[in-house]
Amino acid sequence: KVFPAFRPDKALRVEDAQALNEWMGRLSAVANVEIGNLSGLLDALKKRHDDFHEHRCRLSDHGLDFCFADPCTRQEAEVIFSKVRKGTNASTEEATKFASFLMIFFAQLDAERGWTKQLHLGVLRNANSRMLKVLGRDMGFDSIGDGRQALPLAQYLDRLDRDGQLPKMIVYNSNPSDNYLFATMLGNFQDGSVAGKIQFGSAWWFLDQKEGIEWQLNALSNCGLLARFVGMITDSRSFMSFPRHEYFRRVLCNLVGTEMQNGLLPDSMELVGKMVRNICFHNAASYLNMPGIEAMESLPVVAEHA
Amino acid sequence: KVFPAFRPDKALRVEDAQALNEWMGRLSAVANVEIGNLSGLLDALKKRHDDFHEHRCRLSDHGLDFCFADPCTRQEAEVIFSKVRKGTNASTEEATKFASFLMIFFAQLDAERGWTKQLHLGVLRNANSRMLKVLGRDMGFDSIGDGRQALPLAQYLDRLDRDGQLPKMIVYNSNPSDNYLFATMLGNFQDGSVAGKIQFGSAWWFLDQKEGIEWQLNALSNCGLLARFVGMITDSRSFMSFPRHEYFRRVLCNLVGTEMQNGLLPDSMELVGKMVRNICFHNAASYLNMPGIEAMESLPVVAEHA
Amino acid sequence: KVFPAFRPDKALRVEDAQALNEWMGRLSAVANVEIGNLSGLLDALKKRHDDFHEHRCRLSDHGLDFCFADPCTRQEAEVIFSKVRKGTNASTEEATKFASFLMIFFAQLDAERGWTKQLHLGVLRNANSRMLKVLGRDMGFDSIGDGRQALPLAQYLDRLDRDGQLPKMIVYNSNPSDNYLFATMLGNFQDGSVAGKIQFGSAWWFLDQKEGIEWQLNALSNCGLLARFVGMITDSRSFMSFPRHEYFRRVLCNLVGTEMQNGLLPDSMELVGKMVRNICFHNAASYLNMPGIEAMESLPVVAEHA
Repeated sequence: KVFPAFRPDKALRVEDAQALNEWMGRLSAVANVEIGNLSGLLDALKKRHDDFHEHRCRLSDHGLDFCFADPCTRQEAEVIFSKVRKGTNASTEEATKFASFLMIFFAQLDAERGWTKQLHLGVLRNANSRMLKVLGRDMGFDSIGDGRQALPLAQYLDRLDRDGQLPKMIVYNSNPSDNYLFATMLGNFQDGSVAGKIQFGSAWWFLDQKEGIEWQLNALSNCGLLARFVGMITDSRSFMSFPRHEYFRRVLCNLVGTEMQNGLLPDSMELVGKMVRNICFHNAASYLNMPGIEAMESLPVVAEHA
Repeated sequence: KVFPAFRPDKALRVEDAQALNEWMGRLSAVANVEIGNLSGLLDALKKRHDDFHEHRCRLSDHGLDFCFADPCTRQEAEVIFSKVRKGTNASTEEATKFASFLMIFFAQLDAERGWTKQLHLGVLRNANSRMLKVLGRDMGFDSIGDGRQALPLAQYLDRLDRDGQLPKMIVYNSNPSDNYLFATMLGNFQDGSVAGKIQFGSAWWFLDQKEGIEWQLNALSNCGLLARFVGMITDSRSFMSFPRHEYFRRVLCNLVGTEMQNGLLPDSMELVGKMVRNICFHNAASYLNMPGIEAMESLPVVAEHA
Repeated sequence: KVFPAFRPDKALRVEDAQALNEWMGRLSAVANVEIGNLSGLLDALKKRHDDFHEHRCRLSDHGLDFCFADPCTRQEAEVIFSKVRKGTNASTEEATKFASFLMIFFAQLDAERGWTKQLHLGVLRNANSRMLKVLGRDMGFDSIGDGRQALPLAQYLDRLDRDGQLPKMIVYNSNPSDNYLFATMLGNFQDGSVAGKIQFGSAWWFLDQKEGIEWQLNALSNCGLLARFVGMITDSRSFMSFPRHEYFRRVLCNLVGTEMQNGLLPDSMELVGKMVRNICFHNAASYLNMPGIEAMESLPVVAEHA
């Protein structure tokens, strides 16, 4: 089963006024909203969010090098957006502020609708400028980054938690060195309103292999609550991605089964088997709360659209 | 056996003048020293250090995100302290300088008395500001941080080593990605005066479980000298912490025993067994040099007081 | 077999004008080139590079905390060099710029001649200033660093790739937490001109032991192409380093063989055995293209000279 996801990353790219304005033109047309100022942008984005909701979308997705968490007032965002709409690229500092403003706005939309927000963090993109010119973005010239994650992630989640606007969230990490950091940080924002509200997402991208999956499972198991884990949810559209779920399940079963054999976990198929079934399907079904998902018997594969 | 430890972290918190001054009032009263200026503070702290020594304390303990190692003259520290005593919060830069000044002073006290200084590094604290307001500090809303550790740790140890004021020290790391960094850095400051003078502390906090303990042991074993390790010393007051020592010993024995079975360590109970007994008790007994510890047969659990 | 390597790190040390100028005197004499300005320096370095080439050198080597990748024009480099030749130490910022300039120059020399450039990254050197005074540099008081690697490494490789000046390169990493970062980053610059052109170097220094070697192999295997790996190439002059190659081969065989036994790799001595033989000798022989290496049957040990 493939569900749509809401992925509005392009709205953040105020450093490239030309590309942003082209995208604004398409957004304006499809949302049927004039985007003359920041209010227009927010209206258009909310309208698209509503449309996606009607089409049974319950997930948003953001691919960010790190969380944007610079305080930015609405007035500051207005000024930056107005400048960019007139064709001037925003500075790095302005872009960070504007992205921080929009990321709060997107979280509010998700929280209001009961959606789940996904953050994919920790990548250094477009490392090869020659191939970027030849092939464009997202063509395989990305890698793991080593920017600092802890403080901006804490600040983003804290701001939302403080204002009662924290949606359900799944946070994916691409640098395996940060697994423990993510696992411990996310625990700070479990508020008891939803079981496993803030999820440490399954191993992703470069880590979507046996070693990487085991590291994520062990970090979560040692620092969080494995039994609440919603398991693998992939952002891929391709049919080739379907076997990932089967692969993930086998790695999980192999890991847990080996620990049962070695006496590190209770040798109880009832206890551990139920946990595995929950991680492989039932947790995701109840957590994501997708329309119609209750009747399914396998894990949803989530596709992206924007 | 529970020993006291000297934990003066609150003296560093000049960013919060009100909280600091309340604490200064209590310190002044218990030390019976007027704290009108920096000299008064240093006198009061030294007096408490002496008092703790008389009560058989031989350990100090500091919980820091990272080492404070900004050069700060006594005159600069005087100015910052005077400002804070008058009720003005220090800036972040001033606070770092002042903390650097005090951390040198504390090391001098420890070195003079032959105490062991403990540093607990690498945490990002109070991530959830809402719960901080509700419950206060140290209530479970902390996580692993990813600040840079290598340079400030090197600078702090180097400054003390250069001036002949480096006490015995146990350095604990909370981010498992930094285990190798810590293990290699600490070797730079072994000066031959005490066996294993600078210790890489056992796995701590989020890492105080099988995987975390094994990582620390392997990092130390590969980059340092496992045979000199003083093993687990916990800063917990709670009786629930006692089984940690048993758990640590079992993980150690399991790790070492498995390597003996696999032919990676010599299959000699005499050789390896002696090392294990040393790590589990004798190294700590001779290293810590606690009054009366020679007569004990189990590892000390160290409690904190300030 | 021991081959020479070209290691011109001392040319980068413009922060210490006195030491640099002494070294310039020796370089000027041995190259028989007057070093009155930047052109003289570049001429002398190129002449040495040519001389090394005639003596069958095909490798250069740089030991850097991180890649230098600050844009620096020739004119800026002239100004900095001129200042230092007059006896004034360069600032840290100037030193970074100057080093960035020279590292591009060195890469051009290597690319023109078909040499392989080696980068040894990620160390924090001379942590103990007291022992530095007593014993000098490179005497064992170094450790693993935690500076950011991803962006400067990407910028250095990208600049060379963009200008068609990227030589074959082997990049060694000293912080095991960055293994995945390095393995993924280097893949961004494989351009198809030479098989495995940008190599993730074997475990090095503190990591040159079973655990460290296995981590590097697994990172490369999971994120790159293990079959193209040129295996261990050491920069050590000492005869004691020869067994390292045997040790590396055994760790490799043990890792791969265990995975064959466990059904994680195909149980085919023909397939896997050929890969192992390639990693242990043939890949390095064809990649390094050392004069006379085809007739050898064991891995080259590369020594340094400057």
